[in-house]
Amino acid sequence: MDNQKADIGFIGLAVMGQNLVQNIASKGFSVAVYNRTAAITREYIETVDSENISPAYSLSDLCNSIKSPKRIMLMVKAGEAVDEVIDQLLPNLHKGDALLDMGNSNYKDTQRRTHQLTEKGILYSGVGVSGGEEGALNGPSIMFGGSKELFTEVEALIKSISAMDFQGAATLTYVGPDGAGHYAKMVHNGIEYAMMQAISEAYFLLRDVFHKDPSEIAAVFANLNEGPLNSYLIQITADVLNKRDDLTEGFLIDKILDVAEQKGTGSWVSISALENGTALNILTEAVFARSLSADKQTRIKLAELSTKNELEKNSRDKNLPDDKQLHKLVEDSLLVSFYLAFIQGFHLLAKAEAENNWQINLSELTRIWQGGCIIRAELLKDLKRYTETKAVLIENEELFKMINGKIPSLRELALMATSHALPLPVMQNSLLYFDSMINPNLPTNLIQGLRDYFGAHTYKRTDREGIFHTNWDDQN
Amino acid sequence: MDNQKADIGFIGLAVMGQNLVQNIASKGFSVAVYNRTAAITREYIETVDSENISPAYSLSDLCNSIKSPKRIMLMVKAGEAVDEVIDQLLPNLHKGDALLDMGNSNYKDTQRRTHQLTEKGILYSGVGVSGGEEGALNGPSIMFGGSKELFTEVEALIKSISAMDFQGAATLTYVGPDGAGHYAKMVHNGIEYAMMQAISEAYFLLRDVFHKDPSEIAAVFANLNEGPLNSYLIQITADVLNKRDDLTEGFLIDKILDVAEQKGTGSWVSISALENGTALNILTEAVFARSLSADKQTRIKLAELSTKNELEKNSRDKNLPDDKQLHKLVEDSLLVSFYLAFIQGFHLLAKAEAENNWQINLSELTRIWQGGCIIRAELLKDLKRYTETKAVLIENEELFKMINGKIPSLRELALMATSHALPLPVMQNSLLYFDSMINPNLPTNLIQGLRDYFGAHTYKRTDREGIFHTNWDDQN
Repeated sequence: MDNQKADIGFIGLAVMGQNLVQNIASKGFSVAVYNRTAAITREYIETVDSENISPAYSLSDLCNSIKSPKRIMLMVKAGEAVDEVIDQLLPNLHKGDALLDMGNSNYKDTQRRTHQLTEKGILYSGVGVSGGEEGALNGPSIMFGGSKELFTEVEALIKSISAMDFQGAATLTYVGPDGAGHYAKMVHNGIEYAMMQAISEAYFLLRDVFHKDPSEIAAVFANLNEGPLNSYLIQITADVLNKRDDLTEGFLIDKILDVAEQKGTGSWVSISALENGTALNILTEAVFARSLSADKQTRIKLAELSTKNELEKNSRDKNLPDDKQLHKLVEDSLLVSFYLAFIQGFHLLAKAEAENNWQINLSELTRIWQGGCIIRAELLKDLKRYTETKAVLIENEELFKMINGKIPSLRELALMATSHALPLPVMQNSLLYFDSMINPNLPTNLIQGLRDYFGAHTYKRTDREGIFHTNWDDQN
Repeated sequence: MDNQKADIGFIGLAVMGQNLVQNIASKGFSVAVYNRTAAITREYIETVDSENISPAYSLSDLCNSIKSPKRIMLMVKAGEAVDEVIDQLLPNLHKGDALLDMGNSNYKDTQRRTHQLTEKGILYSGVGVSGGEEGALNGPSIMFGGSKELFTEVEALIKSISAMDFQGAATLTYVGPDGAGHYAKMVHNGIEYAMMQAISEAYFLLRDVFHKDPSEIAAVFANLNEGPLNSYLIQITADVLNKRDDLTEGFLIDKILDVAEQKGTGSWVSISALENGTALNILTEAVFARSLSADKQTRIKLAELSTKNELEKNSRDKNLPDDKQLHKLVEDSLLVSFYLAFIQGFHLLAKAEAENNWQINLSELTRIWQGGCIIRAELLKDLKRYTETKAVLIENEELFKMINGKIPSLRELALMATSHALPLPVMQNSLLYFDSMINPNLPTNLIQGLRDYFGAHTYKRTDREGIFHTNWDDQN
């Protein structure tokens, strides 16, 4: 009887869910699927036509139609919807059953849910899944968090649906207990924001300072994709820029509104950094750049009031680099921004790991991000090597020296952008981060002096141990 | 009998608490004071020797020794300590009694506590108090949040202890219900962080590019304090820089360790901005600048590995402005950074106000910050006028044009700093913010294209209404 039951249950049939189910079914596992809106389930079942996929039209039907102990994957909207589904499922679950949240839940929610369900004897796992629609269907990168026993048990299934790293191994790893998997996914998304913003800044420079058209810029990116920047995002940038508009003449990119939207995960990573005191300016400025783009009407109005046009006229006379020099400037600047985004992300991971006692293997993350996910990139090969020896990547001498060698290009590009009033928040903040990290004497001594002056917050000294307070009002 | 009872109770006798009690007592109000450690209460009572201050050595003693309905101020460490005191107080409180949290509580905690205590018939108020030790004693700036009725009732007392604005009125205002007072204080602190960081950056430039000694830099700040930058922080910067070391030869500033510490409120304001989608890069980079300063050992090591010294040798030959030009560069750059920090802070306040239905009078905040608090500054006179007409300050034409006129100085300073590898996160991010706000065509169209490519997130167009999705793989 149990033989006729499905291997797993799956709740949530939006595009990502549909594709993940098809991926699982194609590997020979049987899946019972449920969606809150029955019509969507019905339509999906008619479309996919797979023996391995069977519909359920209530949560109790779903639970009755899968093997025990039950393994049910959730791919529903992060937030309250996850809690609602869990509450509705609970009456149908028994000790030893397991829920796997495959969505983009906040790691704090995952920690709370793990705690609540563990008390009831239900296994809970927060699984970070990256790869977008295409990755869900053909193989995503999978960051498993939660019970290690559950991981071992479902490993064969999850391994079969994941992508492959540069060596051909599955892009799946056990990250750590409770929220660790979703935390890693959150950091992945923060790095993704920074990479996309850096790319858009390179496009900005080529478009507005060098006055290249989309196909010329596409050619630059296609060219960059042949070198050390080789990556999914650089590759699809060339495709996006080359796309012709269906509705009008010209390139589609010129018709897309420059107001970027965002989901939660990009800001969560910055919130986590602010909570644990990690400097995460590069990833955070990528988030703020999207917020800044929101009010286009204000930008149009202020552009008219500003004296930017005069500046552009003056700057236009200056000598600009030729195409070969420009290629190097852009390549180096993007590489530095990408590497530093990873360095900041891993610094945050190392801190969170220590605070939560997660025992994350950072090197494993650089391996499983090599395939399936949005940030897959050639440079992860180097990063894998570096993470094997240092948790705080910036302290790796070889990596540092490589970045240091490319900083003059980034500095030149930053100067050029500043002269042209071209705001490049991720690239400029990459340089600010680097210049701060190589400065043995920052001006923060003055901040400490001011804090002690008005708030008696005390300070440390450079020449002796101890905590000091000065009565600043005394004349001496 | 009640006549012999104190007007109010006060819990928490750290320095801020002690000073606030003395301030209240000096205005003729009687205060019963309590501290968890009895020895501190005893020592305080012996030191202050005021008829208006009486000790209590248990919370029930405290409650018995004050008039009904009871008004008790709390000045204890933000976080769990506040909840603990409230729990311990509850058995001694009756309907109509009131607690006023004068500490730096997170506004979310204040909202939660207001809700919990209102259900029990206890009035609760979160009061933002700024001014440091000195302000607590001689008059702070007070941002009252909570019940309007309670405000009216205690207004006379609180008014008597506050400082004065430029017109001589009390620096006290009713901000709004529940968390509004602590939210305003949080924004105040975020602006304070940005102002202090901008000041430290000006010092950094004068020290490391112009090789001025602390007394020369102090003279620059004393001079700046005579102009439009006139403010408490600029004034005490001159004092701090001029201070001689007691322990060695030379200036104290040169012996203070450049590792800045931080309390919660500076990061809370950035977290709030990330949660509600407001671009707050200037205030946030001031927070990250402190985190960045933390690992001095890494900075020393990386400085040695870097090629920064060569850069400095090369840049030293370049023409630097003379002292008069330099004064203008620094003055304009600080003014722009200060104004933009206020603009971002008020933008966040306006958004939070709308979301929470607080009905904050932004103009009142620019008035009550004119005296008593750390960010008191001449420029609040202008800002008061601007906030009377516009909630989103950057859209005020007069203010925008004034800032726009000073941007060339900031741009020149930013170029100089970039050439010298001198990281100025607040000044540079002020310029990035400005340059973004005057750009009618940011490169975020590319981000929208990429998001639609890999995640089917859709996009809007510039030339027609609607939501669009493209099948990017199609060749055309």
